[in-house]
Amino acid sequence: MTAQQRAGRLYGLGVGPGDPELITLKALRLLKAAAVVAYFVAKGKKGNAFSIIEAHLHDTQQQLPLVYPVTTEALEPPLSYEAIIADFYDTAADIVGAHLDAGRDVAVICEGDPFFYGSYMYLHDRLAARYESEVVPGVCSMLGGAAVLGAPLVYRNQSLSVLSGVLPEDELRRRLADADAAVVMKLGRNFDKVRRVLGELGLAHRALYVERATMGNQRIVPLAEVDPMASPYFSLLVVPGEKWQG
Amino acid sequence: MTAQQRAGRLYGLGVGPGDPELITLKALRLLKAAAVVAYFVAKGKKGNAFSIIEAHLHDTQQQLPLVYPVTTEALEPPLSYEAIIADFYDTAADIVGAHLDAGRDVAVICEGDPFFYGSYMYLHDRLAARYESEVVPGVCSMLGGAAVLGAPLVYRNQSLSVLSGVLPEDELRRRLADADAAVVMKLGRNFDKVRRVLGELGLAHRALYVERATMGNQRIVPLAEVDPMASPYFSLLVVPGEKWQG
Repeated sequence: MTAQQRAGRLYGLGVGPGDPELITLKALRLLKAAAVVAYFVAKGKKGNAFSIIEAHLHDTQQQLPLVYPVTTEALEPPLSYEAIIADFYDTAADIVGAHLDAGRDVAVICEGDPFFYGSYMYLHDRLAARYESEVVPGVCSMLGGAAVLGAPLVYRNQSLSVLSGVLPEDELRRRLADADAAVVMKLGRNFDKVRRVLGELGLAHRALYVERATMGNQRIVPLAEVDPMASPYFSLLVVPGEKWQG
Repeated sequence: MTAQQRAGRLYGLGVGPGDPELITLKALRLLKAAAVVAYFVAKGKKGNAFSIIEAHLHDTQQQLPLVYPVTTEALEPPLSYEAIIADFYDTAADIVGAHLDAGRDVAVICEGDPFFYGSYMYLHDRLAARYESEVVPGVCSMLGGAAVLGAPLVYRNQSLSVLSGVLPEDELRRRLADADAAVVMKLGRNFDKVRRVLGELGLAHRALYVERATMGNQRIVPLAEVDPMASPYFSLLVVPGEKWQG
């Protein structure tokens, strides 16, 4: 960066849960204005975030895919997911930082919301102290899920527990037993465990399941009919709060 | 409704946390197309939801304020908040239903998200079985708050507890002690109690406070400096999850 040059700004843009129309006016405006559009993506994939905003990109914008080096957290020693992914985020932050140093604004597009289980958080933690940054909140997947399920989520002073399907069975059981209303994300291979716990707690009849909520290939399936081997990562369960008769 | 006439459609439209630019493209499109725009509002107030979308309304649209009959849940017997508000929602549903019967689409605008502590839920529970309805999710206040606080909310497999400041002190303490990350909404007159509990649990240094996040009169104040007598209803506390170093 020369003395004449101002560093670029870092944007974390929530682009919503999947339906391209669920992006906000603000995220769209900042997306269109950014010199560089960055996004996290699995190797060989296009990525959900990119698919959501693809139609809005123009030729003068530089696309910057940040490709994950691994596709699973379950690696055999001496490989360590934590070490590999930390290195990857360091490198991604360096790449984004170089664009910012060169005076280019970088918009990191995030499926759902940037600060709600989003990979953007790892860039933010590495870069926000050094560069001007702005985060634009987005519609998160859990609210997209509740909407398409027609399921009011929390009434009045009910508490909402947002849980990961990856949690150990005991912790999952304890937290679900204590919840007024709950959302379980990151199902995938954890689906069978989660359904079993819901059954044990007598919550199965209240639970609703949706895959890829608001996306073109969205699928709503009764809990009992879900094939546990085929539940995708982008599926979630909603246990709505008991209706308040007010 | 005559035999020739098709009933109107009911829309619950999330219009976001306050910044008018945080409405989604979809909510804006459906808002502009609706014959009737309904919204809940306190007596003598304009209402946050209405303020957010006011600039988009046009002359041919009918505005339908649904004015709350009470402004507090703390009423003296024989008055009962529950009974009064249940009657009010019944009446509101009848009014909205009459428009739907007449073939007019009704868009109920909701600050934040319709199914996340929104009054629209009470209309939905009364009308969705009888009329075609669609809910458009919105950016909720808690994600608006996290964004303006620059606070990544939940990492990896952390659990998020969304709590109401109205909860009894014991329950608040128990749930906060068990939370990886937490958001406390509905502060207002409950602020002092919530801050005290955060202090007892050693969480005060992690908690961040914002009033009217993303609105024009947004205010971010260090926790220790908040005047507990002046905390508005639209304030919230965020206790972000511990940063993951990955």
